[in-house]
Amino acid sequence: MREAYHNELGQLADNLASMCSMVAEAMELATRALLEANLSLAEQVISDDEKIDDARSACEEQAYALLALQAPVATDLRTVLAAIHAAESLERMGDLALHVAKAARRRHPAPVLPETVQPYFSEMGRIAVQLARRAEEVIRSRDVAAARAIEDADDEMDDLHRHLFTILMNKEWEHGVASAVDVTLLGRFYERYADHAVSVAKRVVFVVTGRMPGTVNDEDL
Amino acid sequence: MREAYHNELGQLADNLASMCSMVAEAMELATRALLEANLSLAEQVISDDEKIDDARSACEEQAYALLALQAPVATDLRTVLAAIHAAESLERMGDLALHVAKAARRRHPAPVLPETVQPYFSEMGRIAVQLARRAEEVIRSRDVAAARAIEDADDEMDDLHRHLFTILMNKEWEHGVASAVDVTLLGRFYERYADHAVSVAKRVVFVVTGRMPGTVNDEDL
Repeated sequence: MREAYHNELGQLADNLASMCSMVAEAMELATRALLEANLSLAEQVISDDEKIDDARSACEEQAYALLALQAPVATDLRTVLAAIHAAESLERMGDLALHVAKAARRRHPAPVLPETVQPYFSEMGRIAVQLARRAEEVIRSRDVAAARAIEDADDEMDDLHRHLFTILMNKEWEHGVASAVDVTLLGRFYERYADHAVSVAKRVVFVVTGRMPGTVNDEDL
Repeated sequence: MREAYHNELGQLADNLASMCSMVAEAMELATRALLEANLSLAEQVISDDEKIDDARSACEEQAYALLALQAPVATDLRTVLAAIHAAESLERMGDLALHVAKAARRRHPAPVLPETVQPYFSEMGRIAVQLARRAEEVIRSRDVAAARAIEDADDEMDDLHRHLFTILMNKEWEHGVASAVDVTLLGRFYERYADHAVSVAKRVVFVVTGRMPGTVNDEDL
């Protein structure tokens, strides 16, 4: 049983890594769609979301099979459950990328973002994608040290997000309320994406090491 | 084993029902704090959030014990996993009530909401609380028909949320950008709370009947 268990767990980890890669790609394209008002990229993210949902179902089915056939206990059990939670967060990251793409499509051909805030979103997009890629790396390399870098990147995201709000709240915001509403929601999508990436990385560290690093912090707006 | 399993599952369901009641109470108080600019109610929600987090941990531990000791398979296994997911959604509902309470505290003694939108939040709060109470009822009564009413209430929430956005986007919005940002985020908190309540109700129906009703729809902004 131990060998079968470890083989199956290895496959589950591979599938989680692929999901990381899919949601990184989705956020990369969605951010380009947003910044370049590129409708076809937006459409691609929107139609690809189903694949992410399917990958999540596949991960869950694999985890269920593992639980049903191997009936793991103690740390092994927690490991499988951590994988189920990670798959859920990854699907949610895909949904958030989808929301970004839909915002780009909704305003097309007009750009969603006033020029003043474009550099923020370019940077938040870069960090979001990096977070998902790092989570993938942590899963594939089982290099737990790499997981630590993830929290630093999330701090950068929180700083950017806070700064974005000070710009919005500034009396000199001259782009109107509708645009402020878009920027508010989009900012939140990126921030939540990053929170989920951190949570995935922590669960992955747990899957690899059997220990959960610190608390999984939720966003605190 | 079957009897032990069913006793333990019954206890787990009781604890999920208590969590529903806790998050309903949290959103009820948070909404009053928001509408009445009541600092002490806001503080209460903020300090009580820890209890919701603890209840979620307790549900998870109970589910883990059930998996480890009873090693359920097939429908029984999916039932326990549905309970783990429901506990996660309920904790998230508590977090969303916490965000509402924090918004009330942050702007105190000023009201967060312009008068124009107060009736919307009063109504969204009422529906949110009702959704959580209905989920509790479904768990306690095992009355699956009651679960259906939950989706209707969620449709009402979506309608209110959409209408709120048309008010925000209207050129006559005269309450400034900072206030629009608050209203945007708060609207989203209520809408997400309702989405999670629907997801909990569906999982509960699954726990009771062994069948998942329809798809668990995610929000689509």
